[in-house]
Amino acid sequence: MLKEAIYHRPKNQFAYACNDDMIHIQIQTKRNDINTIFLYYGDPFEFEGNKWRHSFIEMQKSGSDNLFDYWVVEIIPPQRRLRYAFHLKSNEQESFYTERGFSNTVHDDFSAYFCFPFHHPSDRFTAPSWVKDTVWYQIFPDRFANGNSQNDPSETLPWNSSDPTTTTIFGGDLEGVIQHLDYLVDLGISGIYFTPIFKARSNHKYDSIDYMEIDPQFGDKQTFKRLVSECHKHGIKVMLDAVFNHCGEEFPPFQDVLINGESSAYKDWFHFSSNQPEDEPLQYHTFAFEKSMPKLNTQNPEVKKYLIEVGQYWVSEFQIDGWRLDVANEIDHQFWREFRQAVKKVNKDVYLVGEVWHDAMPWLQGDQFDAVMNYPLANHLLRFFAYDAIGAEQFSLDLQAYLHQYQKTVQEAAFNLVGSHDTPRLLNLARMNKQKVKLLTAFQLSFTGSPSIYYGDEVGLTGEQDPGCRKCMVWDKEEQDQEMLEFFKKLLNLRKSYPILANEGTFKVLEASNEHNYLCYSKENDKQLFLAVMNNHPTKQTLPLPLDLHDQTILDLWKMEEFSAHTTHVSVTLEPYDFTFLLINK
Amino acid sequence: MLKEAIYHRPKNQFAYACNDDMIHIQIQTKRNDINTIFLYYGDPFEFEGNKWRHSFIEMQKSGSDNLFDYWVVEIIPPQRRLRYAFHLKSNEQESFYTERGFSNTVHDDFSAYFCFPFHHPSDRFTAPSWVKDTVWYQIFPDRFANGNSQNDPSETLPWNSSDPTTTTIFGGDLEGVIQHLDYLVDLGISGIYFTPIFKARSNHKYDSIDYMEIDPQFGDKQTFKRLVSECHKHGIKVMLDAVFNHCGEEFPPFQDVLINGESSAYKDWFHFSSNQPEDEPLQYHTFAFEKSMPKLNTQNPEVKKYLIEVGQYWVSEFQIDGWRLDVANEIDHQFWREFRQAVKKVNKDVYLVGEVWHDAMPWLQGDQFDAVMNYPLANHLLRFFAYDAIGAEQFSLDLQAYLHQYQKTVQEAAFNLVGSHDTPRLLNLARMNKQKVKLLTAFQLSFTGSPSIYYGDEVGLTGEQDPGCRKCMVWDKEEQDQEMLEFFKKLLNLRKSYPILANEGTFKVLEASNEHNYLCYSKENDKQLFLAVMNNHPTKQTLPLPLDLHDQTILDLWKMEEFSAHTTHVSVTLEPYDFTFLLINK
Repeated sequence: MLKEAIYHRPKNQFAYACNDDMIHIQIQTKRNDINTIFLYYGDPFEFEGNKWRHSFIEMQKSGSDNLFDYWVVEIIPPQRRLRYAFHLKSNEQESFYTERGFSNTVHDDFSAYFCFPFHHPSDRFTAPSWVKDTVWYQIFPDRFANGNSQNDPSETLPWNSSDPTTTTIFGGDLEGVIQHLDYLVDLGISGIYFTPIFKARSNHKYDSIDYMEIDPQFGDKQTFKRLVSECHKHGIKVMLDAVFNHCGEEFPPFQDVLINGESSAYKDWFHFSSNQPEDEPLQYHTFAFEKSMPKLNTQNPEVKKYLIEVGQYWVSEFQIDGWRLDVANEIDHQFWREFRQAVKKVNKDVYLVGEVWHDAMPWLQGDQFDAVMNYPLANHLLRFFAYDAIGAEQFSLDLQAYLHQYQKTVQEAAFNLVGSHDTPRLLNLARMNKQKVKLLTAFQLSFTGSPSIYYGDEVGLTGEQDPGCRKCMVWDKEEQDQEMLEFFKKLLNLRKSYPILANEGTFKVLEASNEHNYLCYSKENDKQLFLAVMNNHPTKQTLPLPLDLHDQTILDLWKMEEFSAHTTHVSVTLEPYDFTFLLINK
Repeated sequence: MLKEAIYHRPKNQFAYACNDDMIHIQIQTKRNDINTIFLYYGDPFEFEGNKWRHSFIEMQKSGSDNLFDYWVVEIIPPQRRLRYAFHLKSNEQESFYTERGFSNTVHDDFSAYFCFPFHHPSDRFTAPSWVKDTVWYQIFPDRFANGNSQNDPSETLPWNSSDPTTTTIFGGDLEGVIQHLDYLVDLGISGIYFTPIFKARSNHKYDSIDYMEIDPQFGDKQTFKRLVSECHKHGIKVMLDAVFNHCGEEFPPFQDVLINGESSAYKDWFHFSSNQPEDEPLQYHTFAFEKSMPKLNTQNPEVKKYLIEVGQYWVSEFQIDGWRLDVANEIDHQFWREFRQAVKKVNKDVYLVGEVWHDAMPWLQGDQFDAVMNYPLANHLLRFFAYDAIGAEQFSLDLQAYLHQYQKTVQEAAFNLVGSHDTPRLLNLARMNKQKVKLLTAFQLSFTGSPSIYYGDEVGLTGEQDPGCRKCMVWDKEEQDQEMLEFFKKLLNLRKSYPILANEGTFKVLEASNEHNYLCYSKENDKQLFLAVMNNHPTKQTLPLPLDLHDQTILDLWKMEEFSAHTTHVSVTLEPYDFTFLLINK
């Protein structure tokens, strides 16, 4: 038994409440090392005579990655309190694992056991329930549609007349979005994430000048109110982008410091150097090394108050449904805790998504964000489907690592984008292979979480890294990839019609083979079994289903055809990079 | 290289800011497996051309326990931002470790590196600076001294006339403490932790009836004000005990519910069952299964408001210096976050100590407590010094595990008690071996943290588990163990005179031998080296110092004698269970 590989520490994904009553316990062990694990558990205060009263329950191996097996079990402690320890057995050894380490026999001092002292809903990670049924559509406002030429800045270029540069303006606006709402409804999305719309200098608006005003080139507050109202009528949520890490250099408080220096009332709104050399340019912390984006001091109570008011204002006055929070990882946790409390006070159902590209566990404990921009998952998907950097077996292991890195509740509310305004277009990442884009998207839209589509991916837009990935949306039907568009519509429609594709089932990889580079995974709940088979291979292949479906009626969701399995071994034949979705009612 | 043993995840003790500028990075590897580790690091946004600019620095092995080696390094990132990865080398292999796992060569995609996005002081664990220089003295008020017989309840027994039961009252009070302040000053302590003094029914007062009133049997607010003022005059801090997890059944809001039932305004102050069967006793959550201690609903805004006011009141009106928070682990983290903000607003130097007996990492992130009741450390000390359950080698390994379990900053502010009102007396735990008590106390008072002495241990009080451990303090000099008292005084005086014994030096075990069951450890800083040698063995032994002290002048702190080492090998001869403290000026 490799004790060094065994890890458990309460909180994070290892011990958490997953609903009103249930505590989820997880442990990791070396891959293929342990045969069984029993959880010993009980209430910290329950005795029979002098003996601590406890039960035990077998844990289930829920997955493995390259190095580890992961084991889980769920417990409902009647008094909401739990003490527990692990009894592990391998072929040659058994061991009892508590907070104090390993012992050869059951540890008789239960005060050494791990502790989940009390389950309070206030400490539980809880995202708005609507999120898990939502598919997002990300809009970069200057590039989606120009609905009102009256608000075009003078330097506006004709729509799609050239590839974008870092400074080009194409005149996209809120009116354009309203005019194309039917398109979005028809596409089947249920949430729009707008990159910033507040007053700013640049075309991307990540250099806010006024957080309380809509940039005039996008429209006015009336138009935005109408937009939100129209979206809500169609069951579409609206999420705005808030840039609180830094402002633009034209932000009045920063200008005030530039003019008034030491005597400015706004000096502590920023992070100025305490050792400013007299003859040198002003030294202050910035976003990256971008002097035109001074970092805001979110530890300053005045700054906090201002930004929290911003957060509340757009929720209370415009009924927006979410905030995507730019460079969220570089702002202090304390700010986000206060921000969450304040914004959720206005509407507890607001979705808070932090921009964190890396491991985000410290932000996903329930006290800060409901989700982060899930680039790590995107990376797994791209490496398998787009780059061919890994085979199906490694992809399956990477998914297992991902699934055991965060709480289940976090995964269901995850903001699962693949491409964005900050990455090359999905089609470019897939080296212009449309079938691969489709296969990846089919996976994305049948996986756990809240997926996001970057505007235009559905009509085959291309583009390299920013600014290339911010091309104008194509509205001419002849220039749109209609086949791709129909594919997205069908997929979105399926996800909506069969919630098991979304978050109503538990995801599991059933088969992953490098030889055929194919993947078979399932989603399952009490009533249904959903099966997906993906042929990520350049040849047509006949692939066996790794389940005995004898005499079952199977619905092919893609073809909408029912068939029955008359043998124990059912196979599906798939074109290169094609897939099939099957549904079995239990 | 055993990759399964390697663990690092940012935050907790693995990546944290230890002062205004410095980030501490820690990693664990299998014991004796890795030869060198280099940290690759840089600013996330700093490039030279297209290449990410980075540096590397060698990590130091800072200790080992039974299974793991621990490695640390400290970095000052000029922009307060850090990305980093680990380059590990064993005899046969090298490997590069990032957030995405292991690779054979340096990972060229730095976006896979671990991230410490920005260091904000608001997110740093920061305890009041006075704590690390404080030695606490815990007083159970009914048993320390009766200074005013006027406030004795009618059932008060003559002082020390019998062993205590769960209900006996002996009449100890605040006036008694004031009258014996000289004793405490002479003893040399610098803080008093009082178990509850608020109005309650029991002798221990953990069943609060009124959080805003002092129990009349202990005195009144005037007396308490005088007590705090007298303590402060002598440089003694005062910490009170707050019981917020539950109240006593006579707490008026609970009585209101008993009387008015469903219509009570205080119904949601508690956790009543939503499925109350009509003919059965009222069902509600309690402390343990104690129906007379109803659990308070600290998620209820009214309860929060009330308890936070309590927390602020005693700080602002009576200038208390600390709160010890009873059953803190069963109250929600969100309550403690708000409590901390509110109380620190009144006085940022208030010390907040949670009662958490187990691994307390989730409470020690900087947003909740400054310390917890450090029973896990006590357990290590008792197992070695008192129980003889482990030898010196295992004790040394356990200390290393402890030292790498929490941040350094947490260890310096730790509330390091050994005995308390909730455990048998130290002397009983040491099977009445006074020498062992002394040896343990010598260790406790020369270790990192803020040590606490339970009243009467210094004069040889005995007693088994509660109520036995709550005997009356002995004031008759003839009944006091004068030798023990002198020992405590000398030790406390040394810790005060030589701050290197407290927290002005870095603790390190130099030698631990099972054969001789002896331990040699050091504390070191730029100017001094402190050496302790402890003979935890029933025979007199001559023990070598594991350092070359040739030609150095050594001060024996216990005997206050200076001597010079004339050979490279210096030994000390120690009586059974004796120790020596040596100081070398550099």
